[in-house]
Amino acid sequence: MHQQTITFPTTDREQVVDITDMVKAVVAEHPDCCLCALYARGATAAIMIQENWDPNIGKDVLACLDRAAPQGQWLHDRVDDNAAAHIKSGVVGPSETVPVRDGALLLSRWQNVCFCEFDGPRREREVVITLI
Amino acid sequence: MHQQTITFPTTDREQVVDITDMVKAVVAEHPDCCLCALYARGATAAIMIQENWDPNIGKDVLACLDRAAPQGQWLHDRVDDNAAAHIKSGVVGPSETVPVRDGALLLSRWQNVCFCEFDGPRREREVVITLI
Amino acid sequence: MHQQTITFPTTDREQVVDITDMVKAVVAEHPDCCLCALYARGATAAIMIQENWDPNIGKDVLACLDRAAPQGQWLHDRVDDNAAAHIKSGVVGPSETVPVRDGALLLSRWQNVCFCEFDGPRREREVVITLI
Repeated sequence: MHQQTITFPTTDREQVVDITDMVKAVVAEHPDCCLCALYARGATAAIMIQENWDPNIGKDVLACLDRAAPQGQWLHDRVDDNAAAHIKSGVVGPSETVPVRDGALLLSRWQNVCFCEFDGPRREREVVITLI
Repeated sequence: MHQQTITFPTTDREQVVDITDMVKAVVAEHPDCCLCALYARGATAAIMIQENWDPNIGKDVLACLDRAAPQGQWLHDRVDDNAAAHIKSGVVGPSETVPVRDGALLLSRWQNVCFCEFDGPRREREVVITLI
Repeated sequence: MHQQTITFPTTDREQVVDITDMVKAVVAEHPDCCLCALYARGATAAIMIQENWDPNIGKDVLACLDRAAPQGQWLHDRVDDNAAAHIKSGVVGPSETVPVRDGALLLSRWQNVCFCEFDGPRREREVVITLI
């Protein structure tokens, strides 16, 4: 077993950040593991496995979620105006588990690991990687 | 490894119940574990990691899901009138995995563990905690 | 620990396929495990725990997701016309973890394991089962 936190900045208010290479680097150092549990620390963030070829798919995901949970019309907005970010984080979810074999994530050809920023930009976001 | 089921009642038809303290108590007794896998038993329930400070965020989440899957307009409603509850449960999902270190969940400051009730009230709901 | 890939075809463009029996058969052969991590390989697919009695609930789920992410109105559609499938896959998610005891999945009475096909039909879809 191995546990490690990776950190990175986000640059936009909402953003789908591809973190596959960072996760792969950690996994490659622990070839005996069979499962990679990913966890986004942050109540306005999430982990999403998503298409990895066309950058527009991230924009499409954000546009779809924005339609489902638009800004500025929720009870919590009276507190700090980020209810939509919390709702999206909760529904997408901060955790995914990806199988590992021979030190490689068993992603399919078009799957990448993405971090969803719903309330950025932030100087430092954290994803905890737990390898089993 | 350790596996334990926690039980609790729900009081409303739809409700976001904060179960963080119950989960923390189980995790604290097993400081050697590194991952906490949570699972809500029940096809009209789910686990959601959500903001923990403002109780209104739970109402906002339920309102948003109700807009996406409104009551009373689905094929399954002819059977037992709870299709919306099943849809919400499936999309939010019954499982989340949270990393653990030194007997503590690695939640961020504003993240709590919540049980989503979509077809209550129920005298007893079950969440299985598996510590690895 | 044990890792195994199950494969099966899908027959429709969109389909909720019950794979519970296939998963149960693998789990039954490894009674010492306590957690079953499921992972759908494919950026237009997902794993969903869903009601297992009324086949219409699958149609309801697909109809609800189609309303949230309709076909043909996304940036990525200019590439290969399947943005809606990618969005749905990302939001539902490819992974679920289900607790195991004595070689049996701890599903509740009405919960089954389903594979969501959002861009079929496909001759062979893959789900990786990792038992811990």
